[in-house]
Amino acid sequence: MDFQKSGGLLPAIIQDELTGDVLMLGFMNAESLALTQQTGEVVFFSRSRNKLWKKGESSGHVLRVREMRVDCDADTLLVRVEAVGPGACHEGYRSCFFRKVEPDGSAPVIAERTFAPEKVYGSEKTR
Amino acid sequence: MDFQKSGGLLPAIIQDELTGDVLMLGFMNAESLALTQQTGEVVFFSRSRNKLWKKGESSGHVLRVREMRVDCDADTLLVRVEAVGPGACHEGYRSCFFRKVEPDGSAPVIAERTFAPEKVYGSEKTR
Repeated sequence: MDFQKSGGLLPAIIQDELTGDVLMLGFMNAESLALTQQTGEVVFFSRSRNKLWKKGESSGHVLRVREMRVDCDADTLLVRVEAVGPGACHEGYRSCFFRKVEPDGSAPVIAERTFAPEKVYGSEKTR
Repeated sequence: MDFQKSGGLLPAIIQDELTGDVLMLGFMNAESLALTQQTGEVVFFSRSRNKLWKKGESSGHVLRVREMRVDCDADTLLVRVEAVGPGACHEGYRSCFFRKVEPDGSAPVIAERTFAPEKVYGSEKTR
Protein backbone atom coordinates (compact mmCIF):
# COMPACT_ATOMS: atom_id res chain seq x y z
CA MET A 1 0.00 0.00 0.00
CA ASP A 2 1.16 3.52 -0.78
CA PHE A 3 0.41 5.56 2.33
CA GLN A 4 2.47 8.53 1.26
CA LYS A 5 0.28 10.26 -1.32
CA SER A 6 -2.21 11.51 1.26
CA GLY A 7 0.16 12.06 4.15
CA GLY A 8 -0.03 8.57 5.63
CA LEU A 9 -3.73 8.09 4.95
CA LEU A 10 -5.54 6.01 2.34
CA PRO A 11 -9.08 6.86 1.26
CA ALA A 12 -11.32 3.86 2.05
CA ILE A 13 -14.59 3.64 0.13
CA ILE A 14 -17.28 1.73 2.03
CA GLN A 15 -19.74 -0.15 -0.16
CA ASP A 16 -22.74 -2.17 1.00
CA GLU A 17 -22.05 -5.69 -0.23
CA LEU A 18 -25.72 -6.56 -0.66
CA THR A 19 -27.09 -3.45 -2.36
CA GLY A 20 -23.94 -2.08 -3.99
CA ASP A 21 -24.69 1.33 -2.48
CA VAL A 22 -21.72 3.46 -1.55
CA LEU A 23 -22.24 4.24 2.12
CA MET A 24 -19.36 6.54 3.03
CA LEU A 25 -15.71 7.36 2.59
CA GLY A 26 -13.22 7.41 5.42
CA PHE A 27 -9.45 7.41 5.75
CA MET A 28 -7.18 4.72 7.13
CA ASN A 29 -3.61 4.92 8.32
CA ALA A 30 -1.51 1.76 8.63
CA GLU A 31 -2.68 1.14 12.20
CA SER A 32 -6.39 1.49 11.43
CA LEU A 33 -6.00 -0.77 8.40
CA ALA A 34 -4.28 -3.41 10.52
CA LEU A 35 -7.02 -3.17 13.17
CA THR A 36 -9.70 -3.44 10.49
CA GLN A 37 -8.10 -6.59 9.15
CA GLN A 38 -7.56 -8.08 12.60
CA THR A 39 -11.03 -7.38 13.97
CA GLY A 40 -13.07 -7.72 10.77
CA GLU A 41 -14.81 -4.41 11.54
CA VAL A 42 -13.93 -1.06 10.01
CA VAL A 43 -11.63 1.26 11.94
CA PHE A 44 -10.85 4.63 10.37
CA PHE A 45 -8.42 7.38 11.25
CA SER A 46 -10.40 10.54 11.93
CA ARG A 47 -8.76 13.56 10.31
CA SER A 48 -10.84 16.03 12.34
CA ARG A 49 -10.16 14.35 15.71
CA ASN A 50 -6.69 13.13 14.71
CA LYS A 51 -7.14 9.69 16.22
CA LEU A 52 -8.36 6.17 15.50
CA TRP A 53 -12.11 5.96 15.04
CA LYS A 54 -13.89 2.65 15.31
CA LYS A 55 -16.98 3.13 13.15
CA GLY A 56 -20.01 2.38 15.32
CA GLU A 57 -18.19 2.81 18.63
CA SER A 58 -21.04 4.87 20.06
CA SER A 59 -23.93 3.97 17.74
CA GLY A 60 -23.34 0.24 17.42
CA HIS A 61 -23.61 0.71 13.66
CA VAL A 62 -20.44 -1.18 12.88
CA LEU A 63 -19.27 -2.13 9.41
CA ARG A 64 -18.37 -5.80 9.07
CA VAL A 65 -15.77 -6.43 6.39
CA ARG A 66 -16.84 -8.91 3.74
CA GLU A 67 -14.14 -8.17 1.18
CA MET A 68 -11.38 -5.64 0.77
CA ARG A 69 -9.97 -4.53 -2.55
CA VAL A 70 -7.10 -2.26 -3.51
CA ASP A 71 -6.80 -0.15 -6.64
CA CYS A 72 -4.18 -0.24 -9.39
CA ASP A 73 -2.00 2.41 -7.73
CA ALA A 74 -2.31 0.77 -4.29
CA ASP A 75 -3.40 4.07 -2.79
CA THR A 76 -7.15 3.55 -2.34
CA LEU A 77 -9.18 0.84 -0.61
CA LEU A 78 -12.64 -0.44 -1.46
CA VAL A 79 -14.20 -2.17 1.54
CA ARG A 80 -17.31 -4.19 0.85
CA VAL A 81 -19.26 -4.54 4.08
CA GLU A 82 -22.29 -5.72 5.93
CA ALA A 83 -23.59 -2.53 7.51
CA VAL A 84 -25.05 -3.34 10.94
CA GLY A 85 -28.03 -1.26 12.03
CA PRO A 86 -30.30 1.20 10.27
CA GLY A 87 -27.68 3.45 8.74
CA ALA A 88 -24.02 4.36 8.43
CA CYS A 89 -24.50 8.13 8.40
CA HIS A 90 -24.47 10.10 11.64
CA GLU A 91 -27.22 12.30 10.23
CA GLY A 92 -29.67 9.39 10.24
CA TYR A 93 -29.41 8.01 6.73
CA ARG A 94 -28.39 4.64 5.35
CA SER A 95 -25.64 6.29 3.26
CA CYS A 96 -23.74 9.53 3.78
CA PHE A 97 -24.47 10.34 0.11
CA PHE A 98 -28.08 11.36 0.68
CA ARG A 99 -27.88 14.65 -1.24
CA LYS A 100 -27.78 15.12 -4.97
CA VAL A 101 -25.77 17.96 -6.52
CA GLU A 102 -27.92 19.87 -8.99
CA PRO A 103 -26.57 21.95 -11.89
CA ASP A 104 -27.63 25.15 -10.10
CA GLY A 105 -25.42 24.26 -7.13
CA SER A 106 -28.20 23.23 -4.79
CA ALA A 107 -28.01 19.85 -3.05
CA PRO A 108 -31.46 18.53 -2.16
CA VAL A 109 -31.92 15.47 0.05
CA ILE A 110 -32.92 12.46 -2.06
CA ALA A 111 -33.09 9.72 0.59
CA GLU A 112 -35.37 8.93 3.51
CA ARG A 113 -34.12 9.09 7.08
CA THR A 114 -33.78 5.58 8.52
CA PHE A 115 -33.18 6.53 12.15
CA ALA A 116 -33.26 9.49 14.50
CA PRO A 117 -29.65 10.47 15.13
CA GLU A 118 -30.36 12.29 18.40
CA LYS A 119 -31.67 9.05 19.89
CA VAL A 120 -28.65 7.07 18.76
CA TYR A 121 -25.85 9.51 19.43
CA GLY A 122 -27.37 11.60 22.22
CA SER A 123 -25.24 14.66 22.77
CA GLU A 124 -22.06 12.89 21.74
CA LYS A 125 -20.26 14.01 18.66
CA THR A 126 -18.52 10.70 18.03
CA ARG A 127 -19.96 8.47 15.42
CA MET B 1 -18.25 21.98 -0.70
CA ASP B 2 -15.44 21.84 1.82
CA PHE B 3 -12.24 21.85 -0.24
CA GLN B 4 -9.96 22.53 2.70
CA LYS B 5 -9.73 19.16 4.45
CA SER B 6 -7.56 17.64 1.71
CA GLY B 7 -5.63 20.73 0.68
CA GLY B 8 -8.06 21.98 -1.93
CA LEU B 9 -9.00 18.55 -3.26
CA LEU B 10 -12.13 16.46 -2.78
CA PRO B 11 -12.07 12.69 -3.21
CA ALA B 12 -14.49 11.75 -6.01
CA ILE B 13 -15.74 8.16 -6.05
CA ILE B 14 -16.70 6.99 -9.53
CA GLN B 15 -19.52 4.42 -9.62
CA ASP B 16 -20.93 2.72 -12.70
CA GLU B 17 -24.58 3.73 -12.73
CA LEU B 18 -25.74 0.51 -14.41
CA THR B 19 -23.81 -2.14 -12.48
CA GLY B 20 -23.19 -0.31 -9.20
CA ASP B 21 -19.51 -1.24 -9.45
CA VAL B 22 -17.04 1.24 -8.01
CA LEU B 23 -14.70 1.99 -10.91
CA MET B 24 -12.09 4.30 -9.45
CA LEU B 25 -11.37 7.19 -7.11
CA GLY B 26 -9.90 10.48 -8.23
CA PHE B 27 -9.56 13.95 -6.77
CA MET B 28 -11.19 17.19 -7.87
CA ASN B 29 -10.29 20.76 -7.13
CA ALA B 30 -12.82 23.53 -7.64
CA GLU B 31 -11.82 24.02 -11.27
CA SER B 32 -12.06 20.33 -12.22
CA LEU B 33 -15.43 20.07 -10.47
CA ALA B 34 -16.71 23.08 -12.40
CA LEU B 35 -15.43 21.61 -15.68
CA THR B 36 -17.03 18.26 -14.85
CA GLN B 37 -20.35 19.95 -14.25
CA GLN B 38 -20.09 22.15 -17.36
CA THR B 39 -19.03 19.41 -19.78
CA GLY B 40 -20.91 16.45 -18.28
CA GLU B 41 -17.70 14.38 -18.39
CA VAL B 42 -15.37 13.73 -15.47
CA VAL B 43 -12.30 15.94 -15.09
CA PHE B 44 -9.99 15.18 -12.18
CA PHE B 45 -7.03 16.98 -10.72
CA SER B 46 -4.00 14.71 -10.95
CA ARG B 47 -1.98 14.78 -7.75
CA SER B 48 1.04 13.11 -9.37
CA ARG B 49 1.11 15.42 -12.39
CA ASN B 50 -0.23 18.44 -10.49
CA LYS B 51 -2.63 19.48 -13.25
CA LEU B 52 -6.14 18.99 -14.56
CA TRP B 53 -6.75 15.52 -15.99
CA LYS B 54 -9.67 14.88 -18.29
CA LYS B 55 -10.38 11.19 -17.79
CA GLY B 56 -10.22 9.52 -21.21
CA GLU B 57 -8.23 12.31 -22.86
CA SER B 58 -5.90 9.78 -24.52
CA SER B 59 -7.91 6.55 -24.33
CA GLY B 60 -11.34 7.90 -25.22
CA HIS B 61 -12.65 6.09 -22.14
CA VAL B 62 -14.51 9.09 -20.81
CA LEU B 63 -16.88 9.02 -17.85
CA ARG B 64 -20.26 10.61 -18.57
CA VAL B 65 -21.89 12.04 -15.48
CA ARG B 66 -25.37 10.69 -14.80
CA GLU B 67 -25.73 11.92 -11.23
CA MET B 68 -23.53 13.59 -8.67
CA ARG B 69 -23.98 13.29 -4.93
CA VAL B 70 -22.24 14.89 -1.99
CA ASP B 71 -21.78 13.42 1.46
CA CYS B 72 -22.97 14.72 4.84
CA ASP B 73 -19.74 16.61 5.52
CA ALA B 74 -19.65 18.10 2.00
CA ASP B 75 -16.08 16.88 1.56
CA THR B 76 -16.54 13.84 -0.71
CA LEU B 77 -18.28 13.39 -4.07
CA LEU B 78 -19.99 10.30 -5.46
CA VAL B 79 -20.23 10.51 -9.24
CA ARG B 80 -22.52 7.99 -10.88
CA VAL B 81 -21.45 7.59 -14.50
CA GLU B 82 -21.82 5.90 -17.81
CA ALA B 83 -18.33 4.55 -18.46
CA VAL B 84 -17.56 4.77 -22.18
CA GLY B 85 -15.37 2.01 -23.62
CA PRO B 86 -14.11 -1.30 -22.27
CA GLY B 87 -12.66 -0.11 -19.00
CA ALA B 88 -11.80 2.80 -16.73
CA CYS B 89 -8.49 1.40 -15.48
CA HIS B 90 -5.25 2.20 -17.31
CA GLU B 91 -4.10 -1.36 -16.58
CA GLY B 92 -6.82 -2.79 -18.82
CA TYR B 93 -9.63 -3.55 -16.42
CA ARG B 94 -13.21 -2.35 -16.13
CA SER B 95 -12.54 -1.12 -12.58
CA CYS B 96 -9.32 -0.05 -10.89
CA PHE B 97 -10.31 -2.30 -7.97
CA PHE B 98 -9.33 -5.56 -9.66
CA ARG B 99 -7.28 -6.93 -6.77
CA LYS B 100 -8.56 -8.39 -3.54
CA VAL B 101 -6.63 -7.91 -0.29
CA GLU B 102 -6.17 -11.23 1.46
CA PRO B 103 -5.57 -11.67 5.21
CA ASP B 104 -1.97 -12.72 4.51
CA GLY B 105 -1.29 -9.39 2.78
CA SER B 106 -1.29 -10.72 -0.78
CA ALA B 107 -3.49 -9.03 -3.38
CA PRO B 108 -4.44 -11.42 -6.17
CA VAL B 109 -6.17 -10.21 -9.33
CA ILE B 110 -9.86 -11.17 -9.24
CA ALA B 111 -11.09 -9.63 -12.52
CA GLU B 112 -10.60 -10.32 -16.20
CA ARG B 113 -8.77 -7.88 -18.44
CA THR B 114 -11.22 -6.14 -20.78
CA PHE B 115 -8.67 -4.46 -23.06
CA ALA B 116 -4.97 -4.36 -23.85
CA PRO B 117 -3.62 -1.15 -22.32
CA GLU B 118 -0.54 -0.99 -24.57
CA LYS B 119 -2.82 -0.76 -27.60
CA VAL B 120 -4.94 1.99 -26.08
CA TYR B 121 -2.31 4.11 -24.40
CA GLY B 122 0.77 3.34 -26.50
CA SER B 123 3.83 4.68 -24.75
CA GLU B 124 1.92 7.54 -23.18
CA LYS B 125 1.59 7.68 -19.46
CA THR B 126 -1.53 9.82 -19.46
CA ARG B 127 -4.79 8.08 -18.88
